[in-house]
Amino acid sequence: MRTIEKLAALRQAMREAGVSVYVVPGNDPHASEYMAAHWCEMQWLSGFNGESGTMVVTLDRALLWTDSRYYLQAGIELKDSTIELMRESDIDCPSITEWLTVNGERLKVNGERLTVGVNPEMFSVDEFADLKSKVESQGSRVKSIDLIKGLWTEGRPAIPTDRVRPYSADFAGETVESKLARMRKLAGERLMVKGERFALIISALDEIAWLFNIRGRDVEYNPVVIAYAVLEADKCTLFVDAAKIDSPAQNYLDFNNIDIRPYEAVFDYIRGLKGTVLFDGARVNEALYEAIPEDCQKVNTKSPILIDKAHKNAVELEGERIAMRQDAVALTRFFLWLEKDAFKDGRTQTEWTLMEKLHKFRLKGENFVEESFGTIAGYKGNGAIVHYAATADKCAEVKPEGMLLLDSGGQYLDGTTDITRTVWLGGRIPQQAKLDYTYVLKGHIALARARFPRGTRGNQLDALAKQYMWEAGITYGHGTGHGVGHFLGCHEGPQNVRTDNNPTALEVGHIISDEPGIYRTGEWGIRTENLITVIPAKRTKAATTEDEWLQFETLTLCFYDTKLIERSLMTEDEIDWLNAYHVRVYKEVAPLLNAEERKFLARKCAALEI
Amino acid sequence: MRTIEKLAALRQAMREAGVSVYVVPGNDPHASEYMAAHWCEMQWLSGFNGESGTMVVTLDRALLWTDSRYYLQAGIELKDSTIELMRESDIDCPSITEWLTVNGERLKVNGERLTVGVNPEMFSVDEFADLKSKVESQGSRVKSIDLIKGLWTEGRPAIPTDRVRPYSADFAGETVESKLARMRKLAGERLMVKGERFALIISALDEIAWLFNIRGRDVEYNPVVIAYAVLEADKCTLFVDAAKIDSPAQNYLDFNNIDIRPYEAVFDYIRGLKGTVLFDGARVNEALYEAIPEDCQKVNTKSPILIDKAHKNAVELEGERIAMRQDAVALTRFFLWLEKDAFKDGRTQTEWTLMEKLHKFRLKGENFVEESFGTIAGYKGNGAIVHYAATADKCAEVKPEGMLLLDSGGQYLDGTTDITRTVWLGGRIPQQAKLDYTYVLKGHIALARARFPRGTRGNQLDALAKQYMWEAGITYGHGTGHGVGHFLGCHEGPQNVRTDNNPTALEVGHIISDEPGIYRTGEWGIRTENLITVIPAKRTKAATTEDEWLQFETLTLCFYDTKLIERSLMTEDEIDWLNAYHVRVYKEVAPLLNAEERKFLARKCAALEI
Repeated sequence: MRTIEKLAALRQAMREAGVSVYVVPGNDPHASEYMAAHWCEMQWLSGFNGESGTMVVTLDRALLWTDSRYYLQAGIELKDSTIELMRESDIDCPSITEWLTVNGERLKVNGERLTVGVNPEMFSVDEFADLKSKVESQGSRVKSIDLIKGLWTEGRPAIPTDRVRPYSADFAGETVESKLARMRKLAGERLMVKGERFALIISALDEIAWLFNIRGRDVEYNPVVIAYAVLEADKCTLFVDAAKIDSPAQNYLDFNNIDIRPYEAVFDYIRGLKGTVLFDGARVNEALYEAIPEDCQKVNTKSPILIDKAHKNAVELEGERIAMRQDAVALTRFFLWLEKDAFKDGRTQTEWTLMEKLHKFRLKGENFVEESFGTIAGYKGNGAIVHYAATADKCAEVKPEGMLLLDSGGQYLDGTTDITRTVWLGGRIPQQAKLDYTYVLKGHIALARARFPRGTRGNQLDALAKQYMWEAGITYGHGTGHGVGHFLGCHEGPQNVRTDNNPTALEVGHIISDEPGIYRTGEWGIRTENLITVIPAKRTKAATTEDEWLQFETLTLCFYDTKLIERSLMTEDEIDWLNAYHVRVYKEVAPLLNAEERKFLARKCAALEI
Repeated sequence: MRTIEKLAALRQAMREAGVSVYVVPGNDPHASEYMAAHWCEMQWLSGFNGESGTMVVTLDRALLWTDSRYYLQAGIELKDSTIELMRESDIDCPSITEWLTVNGERLKVNGERLTVGVNPEMFSVDEFADLKSKVESQGSRVKSIDLIKGLWTEGRPAIPTDRVRPYSADFAGETVESKLARMRKLAGERLMVKGERFALIISALDEIAWLFNIRGRDVEYNPVVIAYAVLEADKCTLFVDAAKIDSPAQNYLDFNNIDIRPYEAVFDYIRGLKGTVLFDGARVNEALYEAIPEDCQKVNTKSPILIDKAHKNAVELEGERIAMRQDAVALTRFFLWLEKDAFKDGRTQTEWTLMEKLHKFRLKGENFVEESFGTIAGYKGNGAIVHYAATADKCAEVKPEGMLLLDSGGQYLDGTTDITRTVWLGGRIPQQAKLDYTYVLKGHIALARARFPRGTRGNQLDALAKQYMWEAGITYGHGTGHGVGHFLGCHEGPQNVRTDNNPTALEVGHIISDEPGIYRTGEWGIRTENLITVIPAKRTKAATTEDEWLQFETLTLCFYDTKLIERSLMTEDEIDWLNAYHVRVYKEVAPLLNAEERKFLARKCAALEI
């Protein structure tokens, strides 16, 4: 079917169901960042292949909201589709509910109340409640109904059925038994009436993987298993396709007293619950919520698993350090190749060939599983496009000159990495490039070196990374730091370092990225990123309060491109930090390299004079 | 009556009214920081004279919650009162509602539902709703009832009846007509249905003073008039005691088409409202809210007056600059006297005599009205007590040695000032004192020099002022900056610079204080405070985004004590800033001084060499 045929079929289904507006968000039922193809309903319906967008279909119009990253792509892909592009990053673009308000009257059929249809599996409880309250305040109503299922039959990819792989407590640092006991205790503490029967609904895939010490390959970049789970005081149930459970997995789950039921059985199971039902409204979907019996007490509460999972234990942190060394070996070899061989004898390179080469180096790493996200190799002006993604057939040729931004990461059994380095490939360096690189580096170091009292939130530290570029009148729009999972999602909550208010304090064991950047359209993008983890800091003798203190340990191990540094902007403390870091990088990585690589690394890690 | 007699009488009234718990907060009906004596019910009932606290009285117990500033004072003043002190700054201290939850069962009479009585005039709408929801979730109920009125008859101070003084638009920079028109427009924009009849209830005294361009002397330090107001599309009513309106005030209010009704008539007036009633639940009291008719649409919305008032107009800002020069003259003369005469010929000084002397210098200033808050003169260890208040009969002797912290401010017809300087009076300076002073100064300068994109909130900038002391493992608990009124409250919202999340962005015309500090118990307190205002910053050539940029203009004009600076910690940029500031201070203040004072100022403003 072509898009206009799909839209016609959807409108027919809407008429039959009494729905005047149908909303298709770019979500899956598990609030995932990376989705299985099975759930890409927005993309299927619209023909637009961007990762983020929401379709709104009325009986005579179709609109797609997406952000500025995708304006160009959407403009091309929506051609001849009759779908109108709504540029949601533009200040004057109405939100979907604002648009419904303005157009609601006109959309009403025979003056009847407007009915907005949505598939409740594709909305979190909180998103649904927000939509519902806005729609209802306009006198319209929201109807839970899946109108895509009946239309998208041909060629719809199945839900992935990759096998469940037990993940050893030697890597996870804690047994399933121990995790279940602690989560039961934490869930129990959130009950209004202590000792009451309760159930905690879990639908986020990384929470399920973490809780049960299982991993899978169902989703690209995220080693998760598609499943639901319900945790109760006396039992625990994993809802997962039987095809995914081989004999070792069966034994493993049996051993841990985890009941197995079919994936779709979760709805019926929830319908049979009693007592208090706990769920995280930001992560659990509306369809699960609607299955909770009327007479249950419903408690929308931040997931205790989300919060606990973010505090990495000692084994997880040690794993991260191991993964970082493997990653550093791959990067060192890549940069040596880039300098020595990439352009030798007239060889040509593109952003894509560099990505492939880096992937090959990572593949050789011990316990490497896959990349933790799609590598961003942005050459010259492409580096300034924050979510740039080169493909094999659409990428720039790279020459031994100018700026290259390289943001990549790996999933290792030991942990997850995410690193950005920006390097100068050759030619005269413009002064503005050195200034930009140095503002970014100074901010990156300021965050890495920060000491702060316990209770400090990430958004309090954000300006430390920006202050030097702010002084020069430069800023960037993305976050400075995101949480990172342990052999799980490269992006995880609840902590981060952003301008946005976030009530989560940084706590010991949290991992965040430290990645300020400057993006000069058409010229270059500069971003410098390490992963850092929160550790206790010693109280100084000068302390005047009883506060406990925290600081960061840098986990990532890779040199910076020191020829891009404008030395006159650097303080003695910053150069000391940089030199100490380079000493550490050499010490930890050199033993894993051959003589030529070691020599290269030594040169890259040479101390800057103060 | 003694406290125990008051408590007995209150309990009798509680029994008669069917109230099992009565809560008396330290509030007035106008959400004021500084309260008229008439409303000091908590202090009257408890005998505790601290500025902050809440009494909870049950049929057999009485408790007072207050914070650590007042533990010592409360301990003394509550002796023999039977009142238990609840130390609310302690981590294990239950909140009032937590305490009610734990003790609720025991407090129930005959197993009946617990009734918590409160005077609704003394709770904001939001505070009341919070208390009510917590109490009701425990199965108890809240009853609005004033039980103090009938008990506190003898010796209760009357509500102040100082006269209403018209405040010229030459100072205010805008006519009442213009303000009323703009506020009607802003209020109208908050209506759900455009064009509907509406009324905005105004009860915060500074909002009333600002809106009507009136000032008064009803409350110490805050030049406000005790009144309520209701703004409607076609009229505007001021509820104020007739005794306060003399003939010029009457003419002024008539001229501006402001209806006058008695203060207490506001409740009946609200009972007669129709259409939509707007109010700021954080500032309007519950009794006013309860008077709103059932069939009105009630909209709890941030006060448009609060938001607008914070953007100082050009005339207000010019007035601030004039007031700052007057204040600088007083401070310069004070510090000259302190150095030259205070200890001459064996004269002795105390914290109190210094406060009196500074007051005398300020009194000579043009358009000076009163102080903007009680001066804090903290000598040596007393400087480390953040809310220290010396009195004539309880204050330390000051000698020409050691550290003195001096935090003071003035209300001038032209504007409001608030300044803290910490100075070394003599003797050898300990190295830690120099370090502490310099960490504070570096943070103070970092905030004053900050450039930031429009949309930045104060809590994003807070760490800029703390980063240097954090590096040394030192922090402080108070806010870094508060908003400041224009010949109004020395503390006003909505903007501030604190660790707390506050959604308010800093905007052009906002005034905030810049006052980091270090408090070393028993040794010294160091705080350095200027007022600064947000102004547009030029876009630099290096800009990479379309953001508008902001920076600060420093308003306060007084030298720092440069002998306390540890030069090795200061960067070249910081010394440049300091030298430029001292040049400006001399240039603006010297013309107002005599020859000897000018010479003194020149010495204090001498450039530091880089």
